[in-house]
Amino acid sequence: MSSTPVKAAPPVSPLAVPFPAIAPVAGVAIGVGRAGFYKHKRDDLMIMRFAPGTAVAGVFTRHGVGSAPVDWCRAALQASGGRARALVVNAGCANAFTGEAGAGAVRATMEAVSAELGCTTAEVLMASTGVIGVLLQYGKILNVLQEVLVEVKGEAWAAAARAIMTTDTFPKGAAATVQIDGQDVRIAGVCKGSGMIAPDMATMLAFVATDAAIAPDVLQAILSPAAIRTLNAVTVDGDRSTNDTCLVFATGKAGHAPVTDLADPRLDAFKAALEAVLLDLGQQLVRDGEGATKFVKVTVTGASTEASARKIARTICESPLVKTAIAGEDANWGRIVMAVGRADEPIAREKICIQFGPLWAARGGAVSPDYSEAAMSAYMKKPELEIAVDVGVGGAFASMWTCDLTHGYISINADYRS
Amino acid sequence: MSSTPVKAAPPVSPLAVPFPAIAPVAGVAIGVGRAGFYKHKRDDLMIMRFAPGTAVAGVFTRHGVGSAPVDWCRAALQASGGRARALVVNAGCANAFTGEAGAGAVRATMEAVSAELGCTTAEVLMASTGVIGVLLQYGKILNVLQEVLVEVKGEAWAAAARAIMTTDTFPKGAAATVQIDGQDVRIAGVCKGSGMIAPDMATMLAFVATDAAIAPDVLQAILSPAAIRTLNAVTVDGDRSTNDTCLVFATGKAGHAPVTDLADPRLDAFKAALEAVLLDLGQQLVRDGEGATKFVKVTVTGASTEASARKIARTICESPLVKTAIAGEDANWGRIVMAVGRADEPIAREKICIQFGPLWAARGGAVSPDYSEAAMSAYMKKPELEIAVDVGVGGAFASMWTCDLTHGYISINADYRS
Repeated sequence: MSSTPVKAAPPVSPLAVPFPAIAPVAGVAIGVGRAGFYKHKRDDLMIMRFAPGTAVAGVFTRHGVGSAPVDWCRAALQASGGRARALVVNAGCANAFTGEAGAGAVRATMEAVSAELGCTTAEVLMASTGVIGVLLQYGKILNVLQEVLVEVKGEAWAAAARAIMTTDTFPKGAAATVQIDGQDVRIAGVCKGSGMIAPDMATMLAFVATDAAIAPDVLQAILSPAAIRTLNAVTVDGDRSTNDTCLVFATGKAGHAPVTDLADPRLDAFKAALEAVLLDLGQQLVRDGEGATKFVKVTVTGASTEASARKIARTICESPLVKTAIAGEDANWGRIVMAVGRADEPIAREKICIQFGPLWAARGGAVSPDYSEAAMSAYMKKPELEIAVDVGVGGAFASMWTCDLTHGYISINADYRS
Repeated sequence: MSSTPVKAAPPVSPLAVPFPAIAPVAGVAIGVGRAGFYKHKRDDLMIMRFAPGTAVAGVFTRHGVGSAPVDWCRAALQASGGRARALVVNAGCANAFTGEAGAGAVRATMEAVSAELGCTTAEVLMASTGVIGVLLQYGKILNVLQEVLVEVKGEAWAAAARAIMTTDTFPKGAAATVQIDGQDVRIAGVCKGSGMIAPDMATMLAFVATDAAIAPDVLQAILSPAAIRTLNAVTVDGDRSTNDTCLVFATGKAGHAPVTDLADPRLDAFKAALEAVLLDLGQQLVRDGEGATKFVKVTVTGASTEASARKIARTICESPLVKTAIAGEDANWGRIVMAVGRADEPIAREKICIQFGPLWAARGGAVSPDYSEAAMSAYMKKPELEIAVDVGVGGAFASMWTCDLTHGYISINADYRS
């Protein structure tokens, strides 16, 4: 008799953090199961169900190719007016670059789930992650639909985080509690992503739910700018996915009077908490970056605009020479200069300052007078680094987070088939 | 007694090509020597002298930080009206991000050389390659100036190519002969570059000389567009240097009547030959890319504009996931789709076609009906690959050349100090 193989787990990232305790969110039921997109035994399907009246907001990949589930979500959010009853997520197949057949597979899945729940198809959303160019075998989802609709009791958010992993080495979650009108409001979220593998597991997926009562348009107006400063401010290898999806659901079960105005001061704490949850999730993506051994925050100040600061920070974060120097614990600040200059943004060469943690590398456009190779080399051995650059032209700033580029990344992405 | 160490040469790139036979170019004298920017014994200084009346054209890094020698060349070309009598090139120190002191070091060098040659300082040009942020110790150059002004007899171009190498594993040269007015006209050039190392050897330098008689403005008008299709169309790691420099010198010693009009039909063969020499040099840079084991040509067709085609090709060429897949001989065409889509250029998703050599991977926005994993895997084992993508929106096209991203690249750039 044959048995289903249990695949040996890859080593967990040295930068991993424990999964937090996450209390249930009122109005959210989570189910997980095995549809069989992977040969080995693991959950690969997750369904979240939401109370009637749940608002939803989303941000999606700007990728030119996109994917069938992203196309579906964009259209569904429009059609439903920002209302959702369920979210279906599968790992193991991205259903991207699959043409009409791929769109049909999503539609068939949404029809089956909406029939079970008694809602419209537009109130059911979908996200997929896995191999690009392979059509979703949605029959595998329908086969196990009944069992995945059974709510997980206990550590449901952890189960959800595990079911959506691809090459992730640890499950990723974050939560916060704030008050609106004196009522406790919970925010909880999970995400997945670590780069790509075998042959293409590209996707960043993040799903956050809250029991706050917030109108869909207000929720979207909170999410869009927050995503820029959080999930969009992390980068592992610069290779954007076809399937990136972040969805935030608000069930309204917390008990406070609904918020319908973005300027409502009752939202202040919620906005900050949601952004903190999203940032925590984004930073966990970096901590699980393929091959990562260093967690790096890059802050650019003195820029002409926030977008300019962000572009310079991104150029530093995505430079293979900067990333390999960090991997080698090499205080190679000249490579930061190189990356700053090739960002094609306004800078004042003669004013550039560069710090690694508390140590000055460059001041006023040249090596710092107090530069100490020994002190810098000692700093570079830390697992978590902060690099700050002032470009000397204005008052705008931005931060991004990245990891180093190591032999581990090459092994994961080049040696897979050997 | 101590002796100067002779450093063990790194293994030569598996993609290396032999240095070609290059005949002398009338009006050009080449000298090389050891100024001592490296601890080990090797030539690190090269001076080319040119006959009076030599025209010069140049293209330089668009890098925001630039370097003192690049600043000098830009100003000198303006001041001299495109005339040059000498070129000084050192390896081992980029003299970039060195402020006023760096500019002074260049000026002092130019003054010494111009005094020797009896020309203006603006007729002497300089290029440097090596560590960023370290001031040029120009005294080392002046110490050996007399001996470096002695012309090399015999394989002078090969000696020049070797003297300007940093982490290059083989010297790079190319030559051509065409006719103008029935007179043989020679074109010869050398270049250096393979990525960066220890801590920063970033620079692409290319120097070409011809005995054609061409006015400076015409020479510049030929060089600028040719550089876009040649040296600017290769990429190893996407990290642009502070010091990139390409200079073309025309001594006018071939004996034909001077060409003073870009539209002169006598230039047709020359333009093609110069572009071929620059492309040959650029392709040799890729063949010596740090850690390279594959030489890859990427062609994008069906684009809205040539610039759009080039940006899509560059995004493919600089994607770490594409480059690691090629290193792993993995026919991972989904990563090409990913790179095409993230280029943020006009594409028609449902029309995208992808070929690897003669094999179709994708047609009409989905996997090709005749896709064969076995045939594709066999093709990927070749050392030289061609990837063609049609994006289905227009008639413009462009090609770029790159190499793969391997453990060798990480070792060179991360493990240097360990």
